[in-house]
Amino acid sequence: MNGAQSLIRTLVDAGVDVCFSNPGTSEMHFVAALDTVPEMRGVLGLAEGVVTGAADGYARIAGKPAATLLHLGPGLGNGLANLHNARRANTPVVNVIGDHATYHKRYDAPLESDIEAVAGSLEGWVRRSESSADVGADAAAAVAAAMDAPGRVATLILPADVSWSDGGVVCAPVPGRTPKPVADTTVKAIAEVLGTGEPTALLIGGAACREAGLRAASRIATATGATPFIETFPRKLERGAGLPAIDRLGYLAEQVAYQLDGVRHVIIAGTKSPVSFFAYPGKESDLVPEGAGVHTLAEGADDVVAALSQLADLVAPDTEPVLAEPRRPELPSGELTAQNWVDVIGALLPENAIISDEANTSGLLLPAATAGAPRHDVLTLTGGAIGQGIPAATGAAIAAPDRPVISLESDGSALYTISALWTQARENLDVTTVILNNRAYAILRMELQRVGAEGSGPKANSLLDLSTPDLNFVSIAEGLGVPATRATTAEELAEQFAAAIAEPGPHLIEAMVPPLL
Amino acid sequence: MNGAQSLIRTLVDAGVDVCFSNPGTSEMHFVAALDTVPEMRGVLGLAEGVVTGAADGYARIAGKPAATLLHLGPGLGNGLANLHNARRANTPVVNVIGDHATYHKRYDAPLESDIEAVAGSLEGWVRRSESSADVGADAAAAVAAAMDAPGRVATLILPADVSWSDGGVVCAPVPGRTPKPVADTTVKAIAEVLGTGEPTALLIGGAACREAGLRAASRIATATGATPFIETFPRKLERGAGLPAIDRLGYLAEQVAYQLDGVRHVIIAGTKSPVSFFAYPGKESDLVPEGAGVHTLAEGADDVVAALSQLADLVAPDTEPVLAEPRRPELPSGELTAQNWVDVIGALLPENAIISDEANTSGLLLPAATAGAPRHDVLTLTGGAIGQGIPAATGAAIAAPDRPVISLESDGSALYTISALWTQARENLDVTTVILNNRAYAILRMELQRVGAEGSGPKANSLLDLSTPDLNFVSIAEGLGVPATRATTAEELAEQFAAAIAEPGPHLIEAMVPPLL
Repeated sequence: MNGAQSLIRTLVDAGVDVCFSNPGTSEMHFVAALDTVPEMRGVLGLAEGVVTGAADGYARIAGKPAATLLHLGPGLGNGLANLHNARRANTPVVNVIGDHATYHKRYDAPLESDIEAVAGSLEGWVRRSESSADVGADAAAAVAAAMDAPGRVATLILPADVSWSDGGVVCAPVPGRTPKPVADTTVKAIAEVLGTGEPTALLIGGAACREAGLRAASRIATATGATPFIETFPRKLERGAGLPAIDRLGYLAEQVAYQLDGVRHVIIAGTKSPVSFFAYPGKESDLVPEGAGVHTLAEGADDVVAALSQLADLVAPDTEPVLAEPRRPELPSGELTAQNWVDVIGALLPENAIISDEANTSGLLLPAATAGAPRHDVLTLTGGAIGQGIPAATGAAIAAPDRPVISLESDGSALYTISALWTQARENLDVTTVILNNRAYAILRMELQRVGAEGSGPKANSLLDLSTPDLNFVSIAEGLGVPATRATTAEELAEQFAAAIAEPGPHLIEAMVPPLL
Repeated sequence: MNGAQSLIRTLVDAGVDVCFSNPGTSEMHFVAALDTVPEMRGVLGLAEGVVTGAADGYARIAGKPAATLLHLGPGLGNGLANLHNARRANTPVVNVIGDHATYHKRYDAPLESDIEAVAGSLEGWVRRSESSADVGADAAAAVAAAMDAPGRVATLILPADVSWSDGGVVCAPVPGRTPKPVADTTVKAIAEVLGTGEPTALLIGGAACREAGLRAASRIATATGATPFIETFPRKLERGAGLPAIDRLGYLAEQVAYQLDGVRHVIIAGTKSPVSFFAYPGKESDLVPEGAGVHTLAEGADDVVAALSQLADLVAPDTEPVLAEPRRPELPSGELTAQNWVDVIGALLPENAIISDEANTSGLLLPAATAGAPRHDVLTLTGGAIGQGIPAATGAAIAAPDRPVISLESDGSALYTISALWTQARENLDVTTVILNNRAYAILRMELQRVGAEGSGPKANSLLDLSTPDLNFVSIAEGLGVPATRATTAEELAEQFAAAIAEPGPHLIEAMVPPLL
């Protein structure tokens, strides 16, 4: 058994049985070894941003990591932005990065570069396998590291000769660190804060964004009068009829100021104290209102769901959560707008869907339109590195082949990793992509105003414009093997969306939506 | 004057007047400042790999750096692979990477990451501007660092508040380090090696791949009997009728073994001693034949052209270089093959063209077919990170608006940075792209065999296959705004190629070429 075979067998034994791959020569023995371990599924991406974004989306739904297969330092570089998003989501990911043979590195061949430096920027776990005998144990350690609560990016660097040499040893699975219990004293201290009756916000994130955490938060809020919020960009948010409908904290600092206006206490549960996404001249970075206290119930690595449940039992023993009633918007009519396209989604969202949301400015009104839709999961852009939505949808569909995946994608973000559509076609994934084509980096037009940039004129505006020439996403999608249509009215979008979700396999709809702002 | 304005003015004063850009919020003041410095041209790319690859291609032709504008760490990550290629080419590039405001970094906002660690992996020059008053001097230093012979990647990190705050000071240009003169004693020592009459290879690279270096090398070879070679992947190679036709060292170690068979001395001029691109089980990494001596005339930072000229005057004072005669292949006919498509290019290559060559396996026979074509420049994939060709062609066309650019691109490599076509359309660049669509990662099929991978079967082969579904590059190109056609015969390719080069603006031809091997 060579190193590659022991690596793949160890991964499979640890439950990692999907490998999103963009291999090169240094990974050929890993590729060959796939045929010796039938349980491992190799999924090809045509660019590394597809591979890493798919691994992120997969793990968010599967609750366990996928592997990635990347080609030396440049392959990691191409995949880095979506690994950044995974890092910010605390998504478990196991990167396998092929490298030159141990004895070849000193020759500084053209693809040689400092992989450790780049991987280290992800602040996860990085190891280089030194021999075929080690690689099984290294792989088990990588999976454990990825699964350490709340989850992180683990990177195993695999020299080509470690991969091809005999002497591989399969290693039994190693468990990751489970979430840390929160001390009773902490829970009681938070209960006292809530007991003051002063205006309080309860900000939940991470694992608390699923049913158990949402129910506990709703009970606490209902019983104490605290206002619950969900972190701005959760890894996976469970939503819809039958679940508590809790607003997310806004992306814009101005929204957050409005949401937290008058609050005296901010309780943090499974996330971090709110900060502005960017700095703006003359505006605060810290979004906690002046004079308000911040109280942490649970940090990222803590067992936030248990802590919230404990707190709820303490302050709301007899209170039931408030659940969203089934309610869908009416199907709209007329020209598509940034206001009405979300109602089409809300009206027609299928049962048990997964929404990958990278609609950015076009999607600002989406949460309201889908709050009473059938229960669904939402995956968001956690790290701000655009180009995540289509790959994440791809990975989610691999993780949940029986669930419809809805990929809502802005035009500006779509082009970074558009070839993920080809992987959807190749794997016949049930993904319906809606491209919101407003022919601009609309969010940057807004930001250009918000940052108070002086002197901007036609050259600046030109750099935010996507209309010369117009992008034709129908043509691009068809070129990548995904059937596609274009909608310019709400009726067309409804008809095309209904048809797409009714038919298995991937579809794309280019929705011609004017900018919201 | 704010920091951004002083930065752009300083860049322009130093001759850097093109900025390939993919901005975000933290770069909005830089974008706004473009309107206050009319000499700076902003060129939008829809992904950072396009931006950095274009900057590489631009500088190879312009002989001076372009700037890039990238959005924090993830933007650098997306652009890292083509910066790796630029590093390996010793191409001067000035990256401007926007970052959070200085006071905002401690809040660890979602886009926060370790930019220095990632930029440091490029082994160039990295600096963070600390204040608006510094940024002009930092920009001048960045240009100087980029231009230090033989050229490198310089990265300036620009916090948002340094960009937007007043107090910017324009800085006068600072020269980079010029190439180091080679000592007379070194030249004489090399002359003595040549004087032995023993079988000798003269391997030239870097700046020696242009006319003066080629002529000197040809004179030396003709007079002494040494065999000249050009490094495998030169930054820019001048070729064609009227120039010495010198073979490049092969990509495959087996080719190099054949080329250097029996050699007793290898003289290195402006490049490095030859090593295998990858390691292969049981094969040597060092490609210098056993027992042969390696003698360095000039390293990368040395004045290799002057050294070669000096050497030629010493060993070949009365010898003229051997120049390629004008000679073109006949126009072929019949189904397209990996053998005949190159003859179409050789037969029809326009005068003074620039070839961006990322044809990989499909292009193995290209050099022979174009050796006697009209004089042209060839840009090659210097760092092995595929996805470089279309962006590099884009940048080259910006640098040389009056020259036809021919972008020869394999299907597997094309998808990494395909949106560069949109930039070509937007800027109406005179680029003719020929996609060699063999429906496979053909090079990896070959490598799977070469590395001796055992156990490979249908799963491995599936990961190297691009035919399920077939990519339709005509459709993709049209979706990105570039007119496109498909050729399946040599006649069609000739007709379409001639039409494309006759008409201004970008065109794409999808050439359906079976795998060479």
